[in-house]
Amino acid sequence: VARPIGIGLLGCGAVGRGVMSILRANAERIAARAGGRLALRRIATQDVSKFRDDVEPPLLTGDPWAVVHDPDVEIVVELLGGLEPARTLIAEALRQGKAVVTANKAVLARHGTELQATAARHGAPLLFEAAVAGAIPIIKPLQECLAASRIQSILGIIDGMNNAILTGMARDGLDFSAALQRARQLGCLAGDTGADDVERRTAALRAHVEGYDAAFTLAILASAAFETRVRVEDVFCEGITHISLADIQYGRELGYVLKPLAIAKEGEGRLELRVHPAFIPREHPLAAVNDLFSAVFVRSDAGGELMLCGRGTGVLPAASAVVADIIEAAKRLRSGLRGVPPAPERTLPVKPIDEVVSRFYVALEPADDPGVLAAVAGAFGRWGIGIRAAMQRERFAAPAESFASPIDLVFLTHAVQEARLRRALAEIDQLDGVRRIRHVIRVEEPEPSQPTA
Amino acid sequence: VARPIGIGLLGCGAVGRGVMSILRANAERIAARAGGRLALRRIATQDVSKFRDDVEPPLLTGDPWAVVHDPDVEIVVELLGGLEPARTLIAEALRQGKAVVTANKAVLARHGTELQATAARHGAPLLFEAAVAGAIPIIKPLQECLAASRIQSILGIIDGMNNAILTGMARDGLDFSAALQRARQLGCLAGDTGADDVERRTAALRAHVEGYDAAFTLAILASAAFETRVRVEDVFCEGITHISLADIQYGRELGYVLKPLAIAKEGEGRLELRVHPAFIPREHPLAAVNDLFSAVFVRSDAGGELMLCGRGTGVLPAASAVVADIIEAAKRLRSGLRGVPPAPERTLPVKPIDEVVSRFYVALEPADDPGVLAAVAGAFGRWGIGIRAAMQRERFAAPAESFASPIDLVFLTHAVQEARLRRALAEIDQLDGVRRIRHVIRVEEPEPSQPTA
Repeated sequence: VARPIGIGLLGCGAVGRGVMSILRANAERIAARAGGRLALRRIATQDVSKFRDDVEPPLLTGDPWAVVHDPDVEIVVELLGGLEPARTLIAEALRQGKAVVTANKAVLARHGTELQATAARHGAPLLFEAAVAGAIPIIKPLQECLAASRIQSILGIIDGMNNAILTGMARDGLDFSAALQRARQLGCLAGDTGADDVERRTAALRAHVEGYDAAFTLAILASAAFETRVRVEDVFCEGITHISLADIQYGRELGYVLKPLAIAKEGEGRLELRVHPAFIPREHPLAAVNDLFSAVFVRSDAGGELMLCGRGTGVLPAASAVVADIIEAAKRLRSGLRGVPPAPERTLPVKPIDEVVSRFYVALEPADDPGVLAAVAGAFGRWGIGIRAAMQRERFAAPAESFASPIDLVFLTHAVQEARLRRALAEIDQLDGVRRIRHVIRVEEPEPSQPTA
Repeated sequence: VARPIGIGLLGCGAVGRGVMSILRANAERIAARAGGRLALRRIATQDVSKFRDDVEPPLLTGDPWAVVHDPDVEIVVELLGGLEPARTLIAEALRQGKAVVTANKAVLARHGTELQATAARHGAPLLFEAAVAGAIPIIKPLQECLAASRIQSILGIIDGMNNAILTGMARDGLDFSAALQRARQLGCLAGDTGADDVERRTAALRAHVEGYDAAFTLAILASAAFETRVRVEDVFCEGITHISLADIQYGRELGYVLKPLAIAKEGEGRLELRVHPAFIPREHPLAAVNDLFSAVFVRSDAGGELMLCGRGTGVLPAASAVVADIIEAAKRLRSGLRGVPPAPERTLPVKPIDEVVSRFYVALEPADDPGVLAAVAGAFGRWGIGIRAAMQRERFAAPAESFASPIDLVFLTHAVQEARLRRALAEIDQLDGVRRIRHVIRVEEPEPSQPTA
């Protein structure tokens, strides 16, 4: 019988306790899959006293370095969150040849390439499925099941919180703040590692609705999918805080659903990397991904189209993804070869958002002027921007007490470079008949799928 | 530099040629992922002359045993289809400790447990991702990413052909035979290994629409997910040939979408295994899986809900899944430990369809009798079967030339054991006011998802 493999936890909040309870409850099944028993050897936590009843005292320590340096710990599970000391602890564990499992999005998005290089140099497995879209297995399928294909694009709904907010608005007619309130009640923030006090929870909330959280995830995903270094600063990022119910309704009438998208595409040697709300056609599989579900839609040359979708948020799914990575790490440690992939060596240039080509939804508030539709259409025409749809009508869901509902003028353009659209809009904004440009939303129209015969 | 690992192909139809072209086109990337080069050593095909221009003649042989016994072949890729000689060839390759990659659904559904036992005995990897839902990686995620969870249920749309037919009916108003015609044109049958002549294509077509193909897939899936021996004979199987446009339309009005489902559930120590068309709520993620897409929706105790969805049919996705398995096999051969899971040792009893509890859609054709609605509702009541919805109306989509459209009487029941429903229907069939029971369709209503906090 093989000696059990020792596990050390750095940090023991909600996810850590979930990991402990899964390791305990499913010990048999996990041992069978990992090729032998696992044993929890050390737990570093700031609040040792909290665990006195649950855990044998000698396992507990207040010092994370004691875990990393413990010779009986072969797999270090980092659940501290934040950049430091997480980064230094992970790097040191890898240098000692230990396997590291982490759910730390921030540290991977900032220092992933450097940590992967350390891992490769020391033949130490570095696993981070839990850092990306929670329990949805996406890194492994990307790296393994699609190993025979070249990935062309990734469209993702990778922030379940934002998806729950937009679903609440679109389906239940809630406004942004009511939808936000409900999404929080659904408990999706409870899963945020370390977000235990009010200040951190508020920061975590902002990171969601302003798109930063998704940008971190996308940086990690794109790096794995395109085998390139990705800096999180290169991800264009726009939040969902300015979305209005009226826009969602107009989009629906035009056949679209508004989703919080993360997009990575390779084309002509450059990478598009962007996180923003976007309209997608209502027939697209992502359009049906609602509430706290996340999803990643991958297009590859040989594998065709693939979507992975699941409830990515919450403590238990996150803990389950961590345990799956622990099992994988144990298998690799037991095997001779550790299967450590090399860190990406190339850095694909990133296309500036100005040069990105897409379709746009533009909502204007016109003055009470009969010629405005023609004037705006004319301005689009002078800039060579084709119009796919236009509609003018009283504002959807205007407050009942307003005497005259505002008028909305909505356009859907053909594909155009973003810089050109911005220049056209600057001119349109100056037109007499235009009170203000209320909103511009990108429209993501995936190419029709190729019949793979 | 490591010696290249030798590959031998058994059979070289469309998928085999796809495998060859992917191995050639992506050689660099594949070598990087497999930990070293792969080399095609031997190809067995019935028609050696077809390949003279493409392949160096010494690689070709008419004798599959020459491939299995070739000492330079370390990975045997079985693409013959059918039970024999595939089964004997696979078993012999495993006995020699070679890795086997197969896309052969039939042989796995019939002899999977026995072949897995042979693989385990000889430490030989047996990989079959390509046999299940084409390019959708499902076996690996089930076995690895969900390793920490106990799977509770699987709902799948695992026959892209049938899904394309029902989509054509539901979305485009085609009748069954027109939808079938179009689904065939979409080319999904082109991907069927070996279905090169008319007779085999017709047999393959029947296997789809009568549900047998999905039953084979479900047997393999359920065996992997629940770690139990599954006999394909134990899968209850009902085809989609009797579906009418009217039923799809009535279902839609009640809030449901008709899908060709495959269902496996564990409960109270027994397994439900069934393949049949079923109504699912239109909000369910599977309801949006259309056309040639397949999908598998998995519920597990810790991992929550997970859906994998992709275009499972077609030559290129199938070939890409085979190559991904070849890469995995090469990695395992290079590592000391071969990661061969033990064959399932338990055999969970299967619940007879009579004892399965679900909701039902029942469509009746009443005689011209004012009391019939009350009479039928009364009969349901006497059997203790609750009614969730009832409607009576002129037949949807009745031929224009018919003077009097037939009347349809439609019921949606509460959950009831199938045997009890059948007994109630036998009584209802005898009622004076009932001309005939036109159709009974199961309704699959997944439990509301638990907020995973």
